[in-house]
Amino acid sequence: MTDLENGQRGVKQESLDPENWGEMRALGHRMVDDAINYLETVAERPVWQPMPDQLGKEFESAMPTEPMPADEVYDEFLKNIFPYPMGNTHPRFWAWYMGNGTILGALADFLSATMNSNLGAGNHVANLVETQVVNWMKEIVGFPAEASGLLVGGASMANLVGLTVARNTQAGFDVRAQGLQAGQSKLLVYASTEIHACNQKAVELLGLGTDSLRRIPVNDNYQIDMTALASALEKDRKAGLQPICVIATAGTVNTGAIDPLNDIADFCQREGLWFHVDGAIGAVATLVDGLKDQLAGMSRADSIALDLHKWMHVPFEAGCALVRDRQGHRDSFSVTPAYLTQEVRGLSAGREWFSDYGVELSRSFRALKVWMSLKEHGTARYGRMMTRNIEQAKYLAELVSVEPNLQLMAPVGLDIVCFRYQPLDSTKPGLDESDLESLNKEILFRLQEEGTAAPSYTTLKGKYCLRVAIANHRSQQADFDLLISEIKRLGKSLTV
Amino acid sequence: MTDLENGQRGVKQESLDPENWGEMRALGHRMVDDAINYLETVAERPVWQPMPDQLGKEFESAMPTEPMPADEVYDEFLKNIFPYPMGNTHPRFWAWYMGNGTILGALADFLSATMNSNLGAGNHVANLVETQVVNWMKEIVGFPAEASGLLVGGASMANLVGLTVARNTQAGFDVRAQGLQAGQSKLLVYASTEIHACNQKAVELLGLGTDSLRRIPVNDNYQIDMTALASALEKDRKAGLQPICVIATAGTVNTGAIDPLNDIADFCQREGLWFHVDGAIGAVATLVDGLKDQLAGMSRADSIALDLHKWMHVPFEAGCALVRDRQGHRDSFSVTPAYLTQEVRGLSAGREWFSDYGVELSRSFRALKVWMSLKEHGTARYGRMMTRNIEQAKYLAELVSVEPNLQLMAPVGLDIVCFRYQPLDSTKPGLDESDLESLNKEILFRLQEEGTAAPSYTTLKGKYCLRVAIANHRSQQADFDLLISEIKRLGKSLTV
Repeated sequence: MTDLENGQRGVKQESLDPENWGEMRALGHRMVDDAINYLETVAERPVWQPMPDQLGKEFESAMPTEPMPADEVYDEFLKNIFPYPMGNTHPRFWAWYMGNGTILGALADFLSATMNSNLGAGNHVANLVETQVVNWMKEIVGFPAEASGLLVGGASMANLVGLTVARNTQAGFDVRAQGLQAGQSKLLVYASTEIHACNQKAVELLGLGTDSLRRIPVNDNYQIDMTALASALEKDRKAGLQPICVIATAGTVNTGAIDPLNDIADFCQREGLWFHVDGAIGAVATLVDGLKDQLAGMSRADSIALDLHKWMHVPFEAGCALVRDRQGHRDSFSVTPAYLTQEVRGLSAGREWFSDYGVELSRSFRALKVWMSLKEHGTARYGRMMTRNIEQAKYLAELVSVEPNLQLMAPVGLDIVCFRYQPLDSTKPGLDESDLESLNKEILFRLQEEGTAAPSYTTLKGKYCLRVAIANHRSQQADFDLLISEIKRLGKSLTV
Repeated sequence: MTDLENGQRGVKQESLDPENWGEMRALGHRMVDDAINYLETVAERPVWQPMPDQLGKEFESAMPTEPMPADEVYDEFLKNIFPYPMGNTHPRFWAWYMGNGTILGALADFLSATMNSNLGAGNHVANLVETQVVNWMKEIVGFPAEASGLLVGGASMANLVGLTVARNTQAGFDVRAQGLQAGQSKLLVYASTEIHACNQKAVELLGLGTDSLRRIPVNDNYQIDMTALASALEKDRKAGLQPICVIATAGTVNTGAIDPLNDIADFCQREGLWFHVDGAIGAVATLVDGLKDQLAGMSRADSIALDLHKWMHVPFEAGCALVRDRQGHRDSFSVTPAYLTQEVRGLSAGREWFSDYGVELSRSFRALKVWMSLKEHGTARYGRMMTRNIEQAKYLAELVSVEPNLQLMAPVGLDIVCFRYQPLDSTKPGLDESDLESLNKEILFRLQEEGTAAPSYTTLKGKYCLRVAIANHRSQQADFDLLISEIKRLGKSLTV
């Protein structure tokens, strides 16, 4: 008798379900305990540690053909994976621009994966949750209720969504149907030199070409130079090219600068251009009282990209794309094959499917972790956490400014501080830019390798510097005191 | 004294961590218990149920400003969200093409979100896990070890990645830098009329235009007609257009057809075209002994898209893009801004960053659920599960074929069965195509609304039909007996 013939419900058949649910339950409880312990004690561990050389060998085996008990798989995880995270759960992780995550956010991902609902289509509650979350995001940026939007993996995708609609609605011909080669003139997108690289990727993907992304110089505050923008536009138009869009940045990745959003909104309105805001870092900072005015111009944008897995600390991945023109948005992405047509009743009912507004058809229930997190904390607490990070950035900049051997390398934007160790006598011929780069790089490596702290680095106006991006709800004042004292100690020991 | 001034580590400060870890631990245990109960008893519940009308109101409130205790947030989840899933965890869910998920896969998502590592960059173990998982995927499709790849949200993205590399390497000019408008002739992509809609989206996003996607007719088995393909190519070339790529489908979404992969590989080789395989449904079916030969041509592809959240039952989202030409792949996506340059030591070390091979910079640790799932089950069990689904499809087709009032509408491809209820006397003038569509639609609504089963539907050669896609490790023979008996009952009651 084959397995199939034996298949009366109730007769135990092989499946991917556990043979023993009780054992899986016990394993799940162990995981919760281990995860709670892990997060509760994170500050006691090094922020990061290098992997042992031999660890790589543990991940070289061929695809397993035979089963392994789930608890043994978990033991492998505990031994070889859990001890070597990126480190961004730690209070002294300030590299790139990450969030910490939260325990409820992680548990929400578990619940979401348990339900395993697909938000590409269908008539089920997850779509209501995502709709509500997207509505909350509109509130955050001051967008009207009738605007459209969807959650995506992150701002790379959110920027791509916004720029796709910009291209398709501004080209003046049917790009979607005919392709770019049907156009008469090159379509151009403008942004400052401080724009995030994912926008370049988006412009390239869309077939516009890197050289159609005009990089406008910035002022001393790393904001786009409006005069230079106007000149570039005029010159390009005279050359017969076709400007379609300006990308403003609310919180640049290098220094946290916020472009003059209202000025850009005025400019785009006057010139008939699409106004896109890359708010991956700073869009959610409208929750900070002191920043509301500076970010108000965002509400005039045609499209906005923002991230929830950065300053809102939702676990990866969680970003959001918002578009003012719902129809233009839908017209850029909706495709309805026969097997996906919408019905008025049953599982396939539903007025709006999120897959009609983005790239991906199968979509996870990432809305749940955003929904649970925002309910758990409320926006006032998020505002306080961000405000504290901004105060911490100012505090750190003060520590830097009073220390003769440290040099602030840019104005502090939002929660990002760029500085470097530069010994007082560094003007002597023996210590040039290249030496300073080596010195600061070595300081950075040591900080990370010793597990003390994890800043990252960037290059500003040709000068290498340490970069501390404080999107961290666990950082405390003492963490910055420690950072500075360690940098001083390392800097001194490396320059004797 | 401000919160900041009070910030010595050890002094309790507000954060997004729970005030009481013990309470959160208890809540986590409750969630594990509830999730286990949910999955263990899934067969006892309706496959799907409509949401009560008033449920929508629960998701209309404005963004919360004040905190809510985590257990109250969870209670809202239990009351308003958990009871209304899409339904694809159920043994009688066969709509569209979904996986069921598994409990260990869901727990893995929890562990992944707890670590919260970002696989866009950095020197940490998650990248080794993803590398190993991608290597396993190369084994599955017969790709060489030196091929490149990355996990993505799903096949929509995986197809976009493959087609981006196709465009950039085949255009004959530097599309990435100059944009498509620099090209002399229209770039064309070929596929069958049965191609998945996400490929159209990709072609449109890439700026090629819908009309550059040539849809070639299929034969009676819903496979691409190679003669028609050759003619179309010749005609387009004569017209001065520039063919660059053929997309083959390994498992079409309507009927599960597998295009003649070796023939297409030969054709692409002869004609100098990029050979892309959309294997969202069928690529992993190389684990089924009886399908190895039919899928062997896939190993000759230039790029392949596959999904792990379908027939491999990893929770959403999990797809994979593979590209034979690693350098061409990297050259299509790599952008390295100053703040992301790679180092030889510390957190920023690492030879390869996955963000250099795809659209997204921030990337979740979705590799973990794939890694744990493949270890837990091994490929042999996956092969048995798929084989059983294929046998179930044949069994269902037999049930249909012996029933006079049911009509099989297409050859059974893989695990997909398309059929409809057509009463014996339906040739009478009173029951035309439109009536048959209404009748079958009503049968489908009732099946779903009564919670019995969730097939979906499609239209084949202008005829509406029920579509049963059995990517389900929980389905048993009795489930198909029930489906047929219910369809007969409903059909009869609706046609008296």
